[in-house]
Amino acid sequence: MKRFDLARYKLLVDEALETFLPGGSEHPVTIHQAMRYSLFPGGKRLRPSLALAVHEMFGGKPAHFLPAAAAVECVHTYSLIHDDLPAMDNDDYRRGRLTTHKVYGEAMAILAGDALLTLAFELMTHRLTEYYSAARVLNSTAELAFSAGTYGLVGGQVVDIWATNREVTNPVQTLEYIHAHKTGALITVAARIGAILAGATKSELAHITRYATQLGLGFQIRDDILDAQASETGKLTYVSIYGLQGAEEKVRRCFESCLAALEPLAGNFALQQAADLCLNRKS
Amino acid sequence: MKRFDLARYKLLVDEALETFLPGGSEHPVTIHQAMRYSLFPGGKRLRPSLALAVHEMFGGKPAHFLPAAAAVECVHTYSLIHDDLPAMDNDDYRRGRLTTHKVYGEAMAILAGDALLTLAFELMTHRLTEYYSAARVLNSTAELAFSAGTYGLVGGQVVDIWATNREVTNPVQTLEYIHAHKTGALITVAARIGAILAGATKSELAHITRYATQLGLGFQIRDDILDAQASETGKLTYVSIYGLQGAEEKVRRCFESCLAALEPLAGNFALQQAADLCLNRKS
Repeated sequence: MKRFDLARYKLLVDEALETFLPGGSEHPVTIHQAMRYSLFPGGKRLRPSLALAVHEMFGGKPAHFLPAAAAVECVHTYSLIHDDLPAMDNDDYRRGRLTTHKVYGEAMAILAGDALLTLAFELMTHRLTEYYSAARVLNSTAELAFSAGTYGLVGGQVVDIWATNREVTNPVQTLEYIHAHKTGALITVAARIGAILAGATKSELAHITRYATQLGLGFQIRDDILDAQASETGKLTYVSIYGLQGAEEKVRRCFESCLAALEPLAGNFALQQAADLCLNRKS
Repeated sequence: MKRFDLARYKLLVDEALETFLPGGSEHPVTIHQAMRYSLFPGGKRLRPSLALAVHEMFGGKPAHFLPAAAAVECVHTYSLIHDDLPAMDNDDYRRGRLTTHKVYGEAMAILAGDALLTLAFELMTHRLTEYYSAARVLNSTAELAFSAGTYGLVGGQVVDIWATNREVTNPVQTLEYIHAHKTGALITVAARIGAILAGATKSELAHITRYATQLGLGFQIRDDILDAQASETGKLTYVSIYGLQGAEEKVRRCFESCLAALEPLAGNFALQQAADLCLNRKS
């Protein structure tokens, strides 16, 4: 039975990013250095790892899929860089290091984000056709674009900004919208790309989508719980609405839904583990 | 003999953008309004019009090509929005109207740019396969991504920012780099996409590339000349380096190179007109 080997996936993703990113001494050096600063050492690489696990589950080869995995991480990192900007969340630190704009300035941070988003689409369209049909590649790329746009990632960030420092009349709906789009969309599309490129059937894709949607939601609620235990914030979170107990209960239900969505799929042990790792984590 | 009918192309591009952009009342409304504000009424739509002219020249149908034309204009508009930001050129006006960030705020302007860039890739990958082979679509999309990235558009903007308010030791090289990347890359790739999707041969593509490169260069020099005649700036331009006479001479040579590049191609009258219109314009 295949395990969800996050450490192995992270290594593969890191190597792929190292290969696909322009070198830090390539002209114009500043932008390439800013892109690399933002991508490395990086976080858990959860999204590309999930995509890899799904891809393997349906018989795909990680080595072939790496451009897509790297593309997903590039989109994620671009969104973090832009979210951290002074005009947005104005964060000076991320994962214990200075944010990109604190090190390279605002202009370069905006451009580094732009460049990573652009690179994601170059990786998708330029590097996958050796192993996958053009139709599947186009399909995956279109899904990534849709999920990164105003009906996905960007839409979530827009509503998040709008809701900050405002008395929201429908907090539950707003919170769910923000997370389904800001966190959920990219996690879901990562899993879907893994399945689409491996040639999953329509019904398999539907199960994976249900699984990834619940995983994304639970992941976010777990984040809120861990944040709430660390410090008191004035932000709209699952804990501020449902309390710690209520939020824990919601994660538990997400976890169950994840497992239920996987039931019809053979070889689902790795994805069960992934759900456990994401939703029951302690940090 | 087919004319270069810019007015007709502009109308087609405007209609296409109107169709492909999410409506201004679609949730989240602010971002969709900011995107529309940035795109409409817009400028000459030169890049998509050039792409359409090339496409028609090689036997392609404008109606089929419109998603690609719209995508090119979305990339162009995204780059203008981000260039105008306070952290970049800090411009309050563009084409006589307030810039996007002056109307919608910085956060929304950054996100509107992000969303237009993303939409460009969605249009390319989602809307063209009905009429073009997946291989040609992928090829075109990969070229667009490459030309928008750090070896194209973004690279040009990085060096432009770097060179501003600085004593540049090699001004000619720097200026040429900036314009080849910031203006040239997108003009060239627009023409190439028009040719690739229409099924141009390798040698036809080479001629079109030479033509578009000279067109982009001449277009920029003409811009510099018109700017210099309107006002005195301290910026590094073709006029500041070569003087008005020298710059005029350079545009003239670009125009000749454009015509020379077209010589081997049948039905090139429209593109001759396009070059005349771009390089010999009075405003």
